[in-house]
Amino acid sequence: MSSDKVYIFDTTLRDGEQSPGASMNTAEKLDIARQLLRLGVDVIEAGFPISSPGDFESVRRIGEAVGDAAVVCALSRAVPKDIEVAADALATAARPRIHTGIGVSESHLRDKLRITREEALERAVAAVKLARGFCDDVEFYAEDAARAEPAYLRTVIQAVVKAGATVVNIPDTTGYAYPEEFGALIRGLVENVEGIADVRVSVHCHDDLGMATANALAGVANGARQVECTINGLGERAGNTAMEEVVMALKHRNDHFGVDVGINTREFIRTSKLVTSITGISVQPNKAIVGANAFAHSSGIHQDGVLKERSTYEIIDPVEVGVLETSIVLTARSGRHALRHRLAELGYELNDDAFEQMYARFLAVADKKKQVFDGDLEAIMSDQAQVAVEVYHLEKVQVVCGEPGIPTCTVELIDRDGSHHIGSAYGDGPVDAVYQVISKLVGVPNELTEFTVQGVTAGTDALGEVTIRVKAADGRIFTGRGAHPDIIVACAKAYTNALNRLLTSQADSALAGTNPL
Amino acid sequence: MSSDKVYIFDTTLRDGEQSPGASMNTAEKLDIARQLLRLGVDVIEAGFPISSPGDFESVRRIGEAVGDAAVVCALSRAVPKDIEVAADALATAARPRIHTGIGVSESHLRDKLRITREEALERAVAAVKLARGFCDDVEFYAEDAARAEPAYLRTVIQAVVKAGATVVNIPDTTGYAYPEEFGALIRGLVENVEGIADVRVSVHCHDDLGMATANALAGVANGARQVECTINGLGERAGNTAMEEVVMALKHRNDHFGVDVGINTREFIRTSKLVTSITGISVQPNKAIVGANAFAHSSGIHQDGVLKERSTYEIIDPVEVGVLETSIVLTARSGRHALRHRLAELGYELNDDAFEQMYARFLAVADKKKQVFDGDLEAIMSDQAQVAVEVYHLEKVQVVCGEPGIPTCTVELIDRDGSHHIGSAYGDGPVDAVYQVISKLVGVPNELTEFTVQGVTAGTDALGEVTIRVKAADGRIFTGRGAHPDIIVACAKAYTNALNRLLTSQADSALAGTNPL
Repeated sequence: MSSDKVYIFDTTLRDGEQSPGASMNTAEKLDIARQLLRLGVDVIEAGFPISSPGDFESVRRIGEAVGDAAVVCALSRAVPKDIEVAADALATAARPRIHTGIGVSESHLRDKLRITREEALERAVAAVKLARGFCDDVEFYAEDAARAEPAYLRTVIQAVVKAGATVVNIPDTTGYAYPEEFGALIRGLVENVEGIADVRVSVHCHDDLGMATANALAGVANGARQVECTINGLGERAGNTAMEEVVMALKHRNDHFGVDVGINTREFIRTSKLVTSITGISVQPNKAIVGANAFAHSSGIHQDGVLKERSTYEIIDPVEVGVLETSIVLTARSGRHALRHRLAELGYELNDDAFEQMYARFLAVADKKKQVFDGDLEAIMSDQAQVAVEVYHLEKVQVVCGEPGIPTCTVELIDRDGSHHIGSAYGDGPVDAVYQVISKLVGVPNELTEFTVQGVTAGTDALGEVTIRVKAADGRIFTGRGAHPDIIVACAKAYTNALNRLLTSQADSALAGTNPL
Repeated sequence: MSSDKVYIFDTTLRDGEQSPGASMNTAEKLDIARQLLRLGVDVIEAGFPISSPGDFESVRRIGEAVGDAAVVCALSRAVPKDIEVAADALATAARPRIHTGIGVSESHLRDKLRITREEALERAVAAVKLARGFCDDVEFYAEDAARAEPAYLRTVIQAVVKAGATVVNIPDTTGYAYPEEFGALIRGLVENVEGIADVRVSVHCHDDLGMATANALAGVANGARQVECTINGLGERAGNTAMEEVVMALKHRNDHFGVDVGINTREFIRTSKLVTSITGISVQPNKAIVGANAFAHSSGIHQDGVLKERSTYEIIDPVEVGVLETSIVLTARSGRHALRHRLAELGYELNDDAFEQMYARFLAVADKKKQVFDGDLEAIMSDQAQVAVEVYHLEKVQVVCGEPGIPTCTVELIDRDGSHHIGSAYGDGPVDAVYQVISKLVGVPNELTEFTVQGVTAGTDALGEVTIRVKAADGRIFTGRGAHPDIIVACAKAYTNALNRLLTSQADSALAGTNPL
């Protein structure tokens, strides 16, 4: 398998979802999966089926939707029940892969698993064999490999290759390695493990010291042929390798890497925006490739240089990653066909009912604003996706505020039985007043932990998109989003949405959100 | 100079300021410079004096304030007038350094400078000699060195070392290199340039492909002993090497790098927040070291692992970078002394007048909120800093909004002559209404390009901090900020502030914002 192609393994839906507050429902995951197909990823890691019914369902539905356009992968620990449930969830996938593994560093063996090296080795081999009974494509992960004793890591990898693993994943779980070291680790395996030429070596890096991209690339330079990554570098702590960075580096430094990568890079910006819109987690302006300033120059010399010859200061043509894709602007006169077409291009597929609701909201927005931009459509879609979980519907909001003054808010909610609930409150500001009255009407204990508002398109008539996070009494975090030209109304929607999510969430299983790697 | 110490050269105030919308006034730069001293940086690049009177003044004032606590550096091109003005601006500095240089890649020679290699070499040598006439400490930058022909680069570096440069800076101007290549470039210079053992080799990397940190570290591993970096990785396009990443990597992988770095890492979070608050440019939650999630685990397995033994998943103790520093909470009963003390710890030094204004605002906020957190103080300071440039003062704002409803706003402004201007307008939302009425009252052409609101502390009674950016008719971008418990009032303050900045900005010289590197 000494291919010159580097396979791109996206784990936005699994490891990316581990970011606090980034949890997505199945419909949202499907929207991202469809966009990942447009981007041309090779493998979609769709979830960790044993961890929750929601994850199981997402893997099943994504397997169905993806068909043979990509491999669909499900995570499991080296535990028989995990593997059986993963296999079950993958029943709908045309090209299923079971991803299983175990910790191999002293820290993981001693402090987390509390087993010996021999026991871990046995469990690794047994897991791969069991998985191969269900599925021809089995990936093994050696958790915390970058901190493992290299000889022991080699023993484990040798054993799982013999046991039938088709891909071996070498993660830098804690983001500890530097490129030279990580490259040497991969090289050591590629040169010394018998039969490794017949399997694919994968790298899975974290960005705790800011080197996830460089480490993944060092892996490729030393023989790895799969990179595990997420859109926007989303993921726990400092996140995972950012797909857009590693792919653009492989393409632009092909002189060094000499590998193929089958990604349609013009979809990067669109994919980045979709993931931001769905998770509510923004990228900073100075984020490589997808940040708002990645291709912007404020410096006069630079502007001058760029005008004379773009390549003086910019190595990537913005068009390559979709920055300058023509933005189609819709208006109130755009018909259903134009709207459906544009939504599909943005990555959204809607059934007829959902589309009609969307169309009605589109008309309402187009009525207030002259022009409806892609960002507006994304905000409406993100807002619309919340309706599915409505326990309380926000019917009316009325706010008076200013300085000097006492911010005051009146809200009317309608519950599932059709009963109306009206209340009013004052607060330190309009957001506080909105929160006080909605909290009082809904009556479920919660604490606001974060709130941000973003103008999603330029101009003051942009839709305001509000993301808020509340912490439930049991410590779980729920994200609510709302979009509206009136940001106070958007806040009220976001609160109501977060509380609806809190009210409808199933009691988590003991394993919910328990993702290794 | 084969020291085992790596010198940290901060360029937040020079290259960081090149981020669109990040321009800072002198008072703001002084606040950051003082915090950089607490952090313990070795060199502060304070500006590019020839580019504008503001930059000149900032270098002068920072030189005065820093004393002998750090080297203060001023940028110039390899142009006599630039160097003379830089030397002038540095007259107040106890330990001045002139930073001068020229492009050395074919792209820069041919497309930007339009000179031959020989001419560039001559100008480089002449610039260093001229600078040495003013100053014992002269750093030479070879712009776009990573894309230069290595033999020519070596010739240039050899010549400037002979001419008296004390530091030679090898920039990867376009963020093009990968670590192995960049390390080899540094190694080639260290091993082949005569007399280089007596000068310090510096690296200056950009993050266009996500490898600025890894490249800078590869430079150190191969003999560089100065790293140029910014707080939060701020800077043009995808930004510069992030100081917090490179320093934590050097400390945590001392087994590999084996160098000393004299940074008080416990000041990182505080410094990061100060820079965010002053520039209005946020870091993403998954930013390494200083992101909100950098030390947060949502995954159950991870939480379990972390509880058993933190090091299972976290290689850095959050306390090391100042995450868990005790947050002192002030109340309305906290006196002047407590407030002044806390502000000093947060990096703010105020004269008596400014402190009294701050104290009055603090009491007003403490009156509305029970507890005043560091984040609140930072927001008030940021807001307060705007008062200096007031042409129009926001006296009153009154807003009615909601759904259904027509958002309506009335505003009263007072100008410098004491005249009152009152007007009202409606809009798509309260932000739009506020914008419409203030625009009408101020009457200067502008276009809103961005607006974001952030709750600066947890809870709905947090101060809302609003950052907006407007584009003037000539294309320049002005950032306005406002903080208030009522986010609509904060919006009104931010707009007024941005327009005040637009009105008071000097017509830029042809060179304003024209920073090489």
